[in-house]
Amino acid sequence: MISSLLDNIQSLITLSGSERDIVTSLFKEKTYKKGDFFLSEGQICKHVGFVQTGLMRYYINHDGEEKTYSFSQEDQYVCNYESFLPQSPSSKIIQALEDSQVFVISHSDLQLLYARVSQGERYGRIAIEAVFLQMLKDINSFYTESPQARYERFLKNHEDLQQRVSQYHIASFVGVKPQSLSRIRKRILSQC
Amino acid sequence: MISSLLDNIQSLITLSGSERDIVTSLFKEKTYKKGDFFLSEGQICKHVGFVQTGLMRYYINHDGEEKTYSFSQEDQYVCNYESFLPQSPSSKIIQALEDSQVFVISHSDLQLLYARVSQGERYGRIAIEAVFLQMLKDINSFYTESPQARYERFLKNHEDLQQRVSQYHIASFVGVKPQSLSRIRKRILSQC
Repeated sequence: MISSLLDNIQSLITLSGSERDIVTSLFKEKTYKKGDFFLSEGQICKHVGFVQTGLMRYYINHDGEEKTYSFSQEDQYVCNYESFLPQSPSSKIIQALEDSQVFVISHSDLQLLYARVSQGERYGRIAIEAVFLQMLKDINSFYTESPQARYERFLKNHEDLQQRVSQYHIASFVGVKPQSLSRIRKRILSQC
Repeated sequence: MISSLLDNIQSLITLSGSERDIVTSLFKEKTYKKGDFFLSEGQICKHVGFVQTGLMRYYINHDGEEKTYSFSQEDQYVCNYESFLPQSPSSKIIQALEDSQVFVISHSDLQLLYARVSQGERYGRIAIEAVFLQMLKDINSFYTESPQARYERFLKNHEDLQQRVSQYHIASFVGVKPQSLSRIRKRILSQC
């Protein structure tokens, strides 16, 4: 159902009937099985995706250790813009944590969308501003918050992901070892 | 001279004569003395600036310690988008390191520019993409590079800033104490 994507775009701009057809023709539906890669290390990120169902994890391999730094779930975009915007090889990896249905658009088709949809550039600007803003908030949290505060923020912002993401990956996102996350969880429970 | 700003915009989009007048009327020239704040902590970032001459430093006060995380110099934009985009209070500080001439545009006037200039939205999209990309590169460097590699990147990317930024602020940007930066500099010199 491409309607979730059209709803998302129409929350930002007005689309005429023929423009809805353009959008529908430019995005392709793609299935990722759990474990499939949306983007592998060293590959150029050639698509932006819009997650219809499922969950994607962003991580980096650093000295043999996986560092999780983001997630994309239903009604969110999935992309490594650092690779997508300049069309250069990615140092980041994006992998499906669950079976996922994603609407993808290629870099060149996105330029077509910007050109052919009257408010296409406006959509592009507002969408990238929202992604940028979310990224800035996440970074801020890394710079200034304790692991416990980061975990509490994760629980608050991604309540549904608690059950969908393994403790191992949550610990990696919070920036601690799984044992430390376990201690943080006990501390929070004892404060309730 | 607003021509540097017009040149920057015209490197991204086409402006008609009357659109150049619109841009010129929406940006205001502002002078910041060395030490003046472009943005104070807790303040809402109400303007985007385009630096004509001078240098701005971005930092955060964290547990009484200043952490420098970026600079804006000639022909670059200056803004804390995390505060500017949602018009919410800033946790970051932007301060003039040198006397600076800056063309500033308010949040509401920028929306006017987007609406009144035919390719205004396109300018907004491409400009924010470039800022976003630069930010992603900087963050990447923090996550994955050693202090020496970060210092070498600073030297490479900001050759002219070496003479304009104090060792104290460079150390803060690299993420080490000034004494450690001193050791890194000696190590690099001995390798030459």
